[in-house]
This record gives sequence, structure tokens and C-alpha cells, in this order.
Amino acid sequence: MSATASRAATGGRLAIIAGGGALPHHVAEAVRARGEDPFVIALSREAEESDWVGFDHSVLAIGDFSGISRTFKEQRIDRVVLSGWVRRRPEWRDIRPTLKTLARIPSVLKTLVSGGDDAVLRMAMQLIEASGAHVIGVHEVVPNLLADPGPIGAIAPSDDDRRDVEAGIAAANALGELDVGQGAIAVGGRVVALEGAEGTDAMLERVATLKTEGRVSARRRGVLVKLCKPGQDLRADLPSIGPSTVAGAVAAGLAGIAVEAGRALVLERAEVIEAANRAGLFVIGVERSGHRGKA
Amino acid sequence: MSATASRAATGGRLAIIAGGGALPHHVAEAVRARGEDPFVIALSREAEESDWVGFDHSVLAIGDFSGISRTFKEQRIDRVVLSGWVRRRPEWRDIRPTLKTLARIPSVLKTLVSGGDDAVLRMAMQLIEASGAHVIGVHEVVPNLLADPGPIGAIAPSDDDRRDVEAGIAAANALGELDVGQGAIAVGGRVVALEGAEGTDAMLERVATLKTEGRVSARRRGVLVKLCKPGQDLRADLPSIGPSTVAGAVAAGLAGIAVEAGRALVLERAEVIEAANRAGLFVIGVERSGHRGKA
Repeated sequence: MSATASRAATGGRLAIIAGGGALPHHVAEAVRARGEDPFVIALSREAEESDWVGFDHSVLAIGDFSGISRTFKEQRIDRVVLSGWVRRRPEWRDIRPTLKTLARIPSVLKTLVSGGDDAVLRMAMQLIEASGAHVIGVHEVVPNLLADPGPIGAIAPSDDDRRDVEAGIAAANALGELDVGQGAIAVGGRVVALEGAEGTDAMLERVATLKTEGRVSARRRGVLVKLCKPGQDLRADLPSIGPSTVAGAVAAGLAGIAVEAGRALVLERAEVIEAANRAGLFVIGVERSGHRGKA
Repeated sequence: MSATASRAATGGRLAIIAGGGALPHHVAEAVRARGEDPFVIALSREAEESDWVGFDHSVLAIGDFSGISRTFKEQRIDRVVLSGWVRRRPEWRDIRPTLKTLARIPSVLKTLVSGGDDAVLRMAMQLIEASGAHVIGVHEVVPNLLADPGPIGAIAPSDDDRRDVEAGIAAANALGELDVGQGAIAVGGRVVALEGAEGTDAMLERVATLKTEGRVSARRRGVLVKLCKPGQDLRADLPSIGPSTVAGAVAAGLAGIAVEAGRALVLERAEVIEAANRAGLFVIGVERSGHRGKA
């Protein structure tokens, strides 16, 4: 981050490209707390403009490279943080190329259509860097959002819980190698749900339903595991949890949540800890531990 | 199947342990068509007793080893086919052991609680064989239910579809190695859903919703892939598709369905072909092809 830090000293502005969810706000507030005034590009169809009233911002479509590039120039942006989820991939008709990006459009379209999430993010970062700004990771701006190793909060996992953690890590690893999702839920040592395009919250709801229907034992609790994908660029959106993840885990009757230490974000940490402690839920930072296959 | 066939000649009766879904009926009808009169043990909470009015049957809880063993004796059962889904694992309080199975109860409970589906099925087969009957595969009783390699029906996959098939095979293989599910759905070359405890129909519904919400491109079709788990005992419940799978795939806007040739069942084949042809959907038998990772 030395290159970025020196760039900051040149007086260029930091942009936050904001998708959905609570993360972009945390980043923006944390940047302000550091004494910088970020410019927010809120992605239409993902972010709520009303959320950004207190910040310099504009609303642009994710495929509007032309508008994004113009904004970079007008605001003298030299560093960009990508933050928040992008649920909808841009359709070809939403893409407004610049002269510089025109030649890349065929590969852009191919990536949008058939690339995994990682491929789409890599492409977005290349397009941004082609317009002269540097993409930096959220953790470089707000390092204290990263999960630490070990218990976060007052509750520790039991031996049974640790078995679920191991089973979930094995499954999340296998998923990550396929560039599919980052999450898995294990109950009683058995993986019962894997995260695809639906996201973590929907997967938690599914497990709550499976327990209600008796298809997963409701007397067993279980663990949500979220890992970074093995080859993930840390400047891309890291896996994250927040108070709503804790609420979803409680609703699914889980015993706890395990996230990859140093490579996953804990948003609103104080609220997460408070809600988890109140519900008797553990939250823990774990190592991927490089193992494969069955736990 | 020579040993089983010779046993049949001794006059012992075939039992079908029937879980939920349409498969057990197909098996029972096909056995009758071969001139045998099967005895059906319908699992309570899974099978509907009213479905079995035309067959000699009794309704028993899945953990009622005592009742199952007595039925085997009374009906002179020498061969058993396991068929249909078992969504609810028996709880410990539902288990009624026999004297022979009593010593195994601790390991039974452990398997029920923490084993994958394969482990539970292996255990069930051991318990059945301990009571003197042989467990045989559905395909040994009704071999023509197995998917053939190549197109089943009039539609063939396009090159794009074949890419989805490859992506789905890679994901289903990774899942199978973890003893989690047998199904995956790829859209535009990208795996968007993985089957856990919710089953294939629920996964298809999820993809239909993701398309409606724009989180998966609705202009891309996609493919459902179902494979047998790598180490699966073929006497256990093989992956299967039927007319309802075709209906679910059509509702999710998919282009087709790929199942493992020789290791997956196509139920009501004529109806499947008719419905698939009408909807312009391909159905194809594929090889697992032993590859791993990204297609």
C-alpha cells in the first residue's frame, strides 16, 4: 500500500464505487474518520441514492464506463475502492463504453456472460486501472474491519461445533476453487447448504426452512462458514458478515459463524458481538488450513 | 445380478422399501410386469399409504428395525430394493432395535447424526443384510430406467449448452466428493446453484427466482446436471429425473438436463421425452469424465 499512500499525498481523491448492502457506508465513514472526503459512485439498481445524501456522490449504471471515467476526471480520482454487492450483472445494452474501453467490449461481454464472479471483478478492476486510477482493497482503507483469528465475542465453539466448522471449510474450499460462492452451512457434521448466486442471507433462510420441515434435524445447531476464494484478489469484495448475518444465523438455529481470519470483514463489529453474545452464538476467525475433501 | 436372480428362483419375495416420490411406484409396477408380486414397506412420514392400495404393503417408521425385520420373516423376503427419497432422518426416539441390531445402535446414532447421506444408506443396507435379505439396485430390477449415453429425446445441446454441462459436471463432481448433493445448475457457463439438503426441485425453484430478480441473467438459459456421487453404492438411491424435473427446468428457463449415463434413472421416460420435446428442452446422458475444477 506504499504506492497508494504516496498517491494519496499527491492530493488525488478516493472514490468508493458502492454496490448494495451496509459495507460501502462503513468504508465511507471510516475514510472520513481518517480525514479524507471520499467521492461515492452509487451503482444504480444496487445502491440506494438516499443513503448517500451526506456524501459527495453521483448515481451511475455499472456498465456506464463513459460516465465513470468522466467522474474520475472531474473529481481527480486516483484511488478506487470497490465495495458492496453487485447482484445484477450489466446487460450488454446497459454498457456505455469510452473510446479506451471500446476495443475491450467483446471480451467484456464474454466475461459478463460466462465468467465467474472473480472474472467479472478482475475485468472491472482492469477497466478502472485503464482510466488511470488505482484499485485498492477495503482492508487498506479500513484495516480494522478484517476478522482476527480466534473468537470474536464471548462464546467459543464446542467440539461438535468445531466439526461443523471443519466440514464447512472443506465445502467452502471446494466451492471457492470452482469460483462459486464463498459460503456453506454444516449441521451435525454434514454440509446441508452451499451458497450459489442466491447469497448468504438466502442460504440461511433455506436452512431455517429445512429445519422447520424436518429435513435437517432442528435439534442440531450447525455453523455458517464463509471463506475467501483461494485465488481471490483481496481488492475485490471480501466475504463479510454483519448484524443481519447474526440475525439470519439465529433464525436458522445455528450455533455460530466462522469467517476466514485476515480475509473476511466483520461489519459493525460491536453490534455483531453484542447480538451474538445475547443469542449465545459464537463468531470465530478461522484459517482455511489448506485441507481438501472431507473433514 | 446372477446371485440375486438365482435367489429369486428359490421363491423368496422381493421387498421394496418405499420412500417419497414417484420412483417406488415405477419399480413396483415394473416388478409386477416381470411377473413377481413385490411386498412394499412404505416408510411413514415419507410415502403416502394411499398410493399403495393395489399392492401388498405395510407402513413402518424408518427406524423401526424390529417391525422391518418381522415383516421380512413373515413375508419370506430375500431381496430388498431401496427406492424413493428419505427426507427426514429418524430421530433416536423413533428407533426400535431388534436384538441383532441392539449392539449397533451407538454407531447407528452416530451415523444418523453426523454421517453424509451415503453413510446413512450404507448403514441401512448393512442392517438389512444383517437380517438375512440381500439389497439389490433398482437398476437390477428395472434396467431400462437407466439413462443411456447421448440425447434422450429430440433436442440436442448447443455449444453454449455444452459449456454449461461441463461447468455443471465440475461442480457436481466437487459436491459428490464431499458427499453433499448430486446436482448443480450452470447458466452462461457459470455455476449459480448447488444442491444441498433441499433437493433438486427446490434448487430449480431457486434459479427461477434468481432469474426473475435479475440476479441471474434471464436471457441465458442454463443446464441442470445430476451425477451419481463418485463412490456411490449403486444399490442406494440413484439420482433420478422425471416429468416434474422437466417441468421445474422449464419454469427455471433452462435449456436442458444432463444426467450421468448408466448411473442415473429416467422415470416415465415417454412422458419426460414428450414434455422435453414440447418445451424445446434437451435431456442428455453424459459421462462424468473424471475431470476436476473449472470446465
